[in-house]
Amino acid sequence: MSEFKSKIKTIEWVEDYSRMVDQTVLPYEFRYVDIKTGQQMFDAIQMMVVRGAPAIGIAGAHGVTLYAQELQGLPREKFIAELLQKADYLAGSRPTAVNLMWAVEKQKQIIKNSASDTAGIVEELKRNGIRMQAEDIAINRKIGDFGAEAVPEGAVILTHCNAGALATAGYGTALGVVRSAFAKDNTIQVFANETRPRQQGARITTLELTMDGIPVTLITDGMCSYFMKKGMIDMVVTGADRIAANGDTANKIGTYTVAIAAKYHNIPFYIAAPLSTIDTSIQTGNEIPVEERSREEVTHINGKIICAPEVNIINPGFDVTPNELITGIITEAGILRPDYNTSIKNVFSFV
Amino acid sequence: MSEFKSKIKTIEWVEDYSRMVDQTVLPYEFRYVDIKTGQQMFDAIQMMVVRGAPAIGIAGAHGVTLYAQELQGLPREKFIAELLQKADYLAGSRPTAVNLMWAVEKQKQIIKNSASDTAGIVEELKRNGIRMQAEDIAINRKIGDFGAEAVPEGAVILTHCNAGALATAGYGTALGVVRSAFAKDNTIQVFANETRPRQQGARITTLELTMDGIPVTLITDGMCSYFMKKGMIDMVVTGADRIAANGDTANKIGTYTVAIAAKYHNIPFYIAAPLSTIDTSIQTGNEIPVEERSREEVTHINGKIICAPEVNIINPGFDVTPNELITGIITEAGILRPDYNTSIKNVFSFV
Repeated sequence: MSEFKSKIKTIEWVEDYSRMVDQTVLPYEFRYVDIKTGQQMFDAIQMMVVRGAPAIGIAGAHGVTLYAQELQGLPREKFIAELLQKADYLAGSRPTAVNLMWAVEKQKQIIKNSASDTAGIVEELKRNGIRMQAEDIAINRKIGDFGAEAVPEGAVILTHCNAGALATAGYGTALGVVRSAFAKDNTIQVFANETRPRQQGARITTLELTMDGIPVTLITDGMCSYFMKKGMIDMVVTGADRIAANGDTANKIGTYTVAIAAKYHNIPFYIAAPLSTIDTSIQTGNEIPVEERSREEVTHINGKIICAPEVNIINPGFDVTPNELITGIITEAGILRPDYNTSIKNVFSFV
Repeated sequence: MSEFKSKIKTIEWVEDYSRMVDQTVLPYEFRYVDIKTGQQMFDAIQMMVVRGAPAIGIAGAHGVTLYAQELQGLPREKFIAELLQKADYLAGSRPTAVNLMWAVEKQKQIIKNSASDTAGIVEELKRNGIRMQAEDIAINRKIGDFGAEAVPEGAVILTHCNAGALATAGYGTALGVVRSAFAKDNTIQVFANETRPRQQGARITTLELTMDGIPVTLITDGMCSYFMKKGMIDMVVTGADRIAANGDTANKIGTYTVAIAAKYHNIPFYIAAPLSTIDTSIQTGNEIPVEERSREEVTHINGKIICAPEVNIINPGFDVTPNELITGIITEAGILRPDYNTSIKNVFSFV
């Protein structure tokens, strides 16, 4: 496995508290905040101090541990009852984040099933949070290492949005591929699409790559074809929010445009995502609902309006890239290739 | 010819001075400034109070008239000598704007060839400036009317950047097509690409269309394919900065990406531009030089940095859309169709 050491510690358990990068002030400031109570964790998740579904899951696990520490002095039965209530409360801090509910549920199972005293339960919860994080990072490292095999020597990799360390428990999916490739070949480099409207490419991807010493060039979303035509882009790798059974992939708005441009220039286009992103209950991308987001994300930047105030806005948060545009889906079980109906069915019959 | 009345008066001659929209404060404020001396006109052009090559040309013609008014009391010979000097000085306010040099040269010919006294020369210069503007607007109206014939009933027209009234002497090229189409059918509407980095689509196109009561939806550059796939875009029309003899077209960065997306979805993609934009001295788009612009246009918005400060930037101002992606080139002499080598040769043999 790749030995690449990232400087980014999105979230980690330190002695008896949780430390995380404060993502509300990126890229203007890079600072860590120490979360020492359950309520602080609730607030941190709700206010998006931590973002990205896998990272939020870890935060939820840490949060249950923090509540357990606070309640540790109670009699065992009362401790368990109150802690389960607090866990449910914490899971409601961002109700739509599936990973958060999943991670809190894992902690609740420990609380319910443990034979230990309250101190022992606290210890089990802490260890489980640390283990969940390690597992998420291990999956990302596997994705990175499989993906790195598809990266040509000295390649320039274009990415969209941020599927990096700062969206996961660490290391990243699309940027995990970049990190693993860079560990083998430090002549590779990244072009980062700005990713309007929320500019995750500009705000987050450029930051985490420069921190890790990986060369990155920021471009605006409309520029990608210009550089493809010039032969300056060797491959595209992005993350995914949901993948259908046929390989159709929902990801941040703008991904589909990049995929079309890559196809036009015969440039390989890869998705990097854990198997948990594949939803085999839906057959095609047409069934993936696309969240519509606020008009202010388009009309305002840094609080200042950039257009005529009366303009109409439609702001889809995601788009769906059809499987015909996808060269491969990089997972922790290897790179899935077309026909995706078959390769996805096969990978789930083996894991 | 279309009777559409635009509310936008980009620049006009009023009694004995020039009045223009102050484009440095768009979209935050829509105000006119009155330019009453030659030096004020020099400053207005240099500081981009007026922008867009055709609009700058008119400003240059007005500026020579303003200098002539100031020098009118001098003896005729001295008047002519000093005025020609001032004209050359004014032409240097933006040395790369071809239209500015062309317009100032037209005024210099009048100064040199007139048989009138100084007051008569002032009057001739004033009339010529007004005539040049009327001619530019008449060309735009012809472009608009030819283009409108290609607009389906109730069409949604996607445009990129601003090829509107505010970039020309008035009416616009791509937005001239929109205005003429809207005059015939008020169910048409516009989707405007934001056009990062300088956001002319957001800042200028949404403003001039809402002022004229034409429905406009602002989208970010990466979104266009999403709406194309949904069947919400019926055609694309953009302007052009330079067109080669084979139809390859240089326009604002991002145009090429839109053209590829349109092709993928079988949506017609048109260029709207006066014949003066076609440079038959160059055979293909490969010969069109692309200006590289400042890193701050990408890294900063409204003066605030949006990315890691150390990031690399490459900021091409334009891209070249190959002729194979262009459905037609809408000119004042009609819509040119492929094969462009032939149709462009033919149109220049007739005009």
